[in-house]
Amino acid sequence: MAHRTVGHRPGLPDDPHTSVTAPTPACPVEITLAALHGRWTTLVIRELLRGDRSYSELRAALPALSDKVLSDRLAHLAEADVVHRDRRAGWPPRVRYALTDQGRRLGPVLQALWDWGADATVQEPGLRQPPP
Amino acid sequence: MAHRTVGHRPGLPDDPHTSVTAPTPACPVEITLAALHGRWTTLVIRELLRGDRSYSELRAALPALSDKVLSDRLAHLAEADVVHRDRRAGWPPRVRYALTDQGRRLGPVLQALWDWGADATVQEPGLRQPPP
Repeated sequence: MAHRTVGHRPGLPDDPHTSVTAPTPACPVEITLAALHGRWTTLVIRELLRGDRSYSELRAALPALSDKVLSDRLAHLAEADVVHRDRRAGWPPRVRYALTDQGRRLGPVLQALWDWGADATVQEPGLRQPPP
Repeated sequence: MAHRTVGHRPGLPDDPHTSVTAPTPACPVEITLAALHGRWTTLVIRELLRGDRSYSELRAALPALSDKVLSDRLAHLAEADVVHRDRRAGWPPRVRYALTDQGRRLGPVLQALWDWGADATVQEPGLRQPPP
């Protein structure tokens, strides 16, 4: 089953991971899901897709997000090379959080996730209610 | 902050969830991530994107996947309206698992997840090794 041409789906890149038969953290799909993992993670990315932000701007945009979780998420996203911490010269020094090039490429990924979920809710109209 | 035009990102659908300030299971992105959630889930979907399968064909394609987990994943995917169980007439009756229309629309979503992760591994060449 590990032969890379068996069951190869046209359109997927010619990569041995298209034929993996067990979960592996090196699979490209797993890498992306790992980067997006965690409550609040996609909301932090959404804010940064709109532009770079200071820590306090992120706190203001997501007021129910605690300091501990926001710090954790920013550290996780920096580790995944999605976010970088940009220290501006001057006094007082200003720290801004911004997406890396790779982080900005999550835009179309979130759009694809959004589109499927929005489509799915058409089947279950109750889910289309705005949140309270 | 809840006003739907504030910070509205061009290109995202005009949906109040673009402005949510806290995680909600009704957000389209959350709906999709919930459908994909769980170890093995994306591999089961990948197999079914290649065509409908009997239970034993799924077991053969993913030999390290236990009966319990495969049954759990198929039930989860049926609940999410991704997979349907198709009972064919005849004797013995044959049961096939197939993607619903909505399930087939996960193809481009998995492709987007794949593309980002494949791109990310270019930065860290060690991750491109095929799995053992």
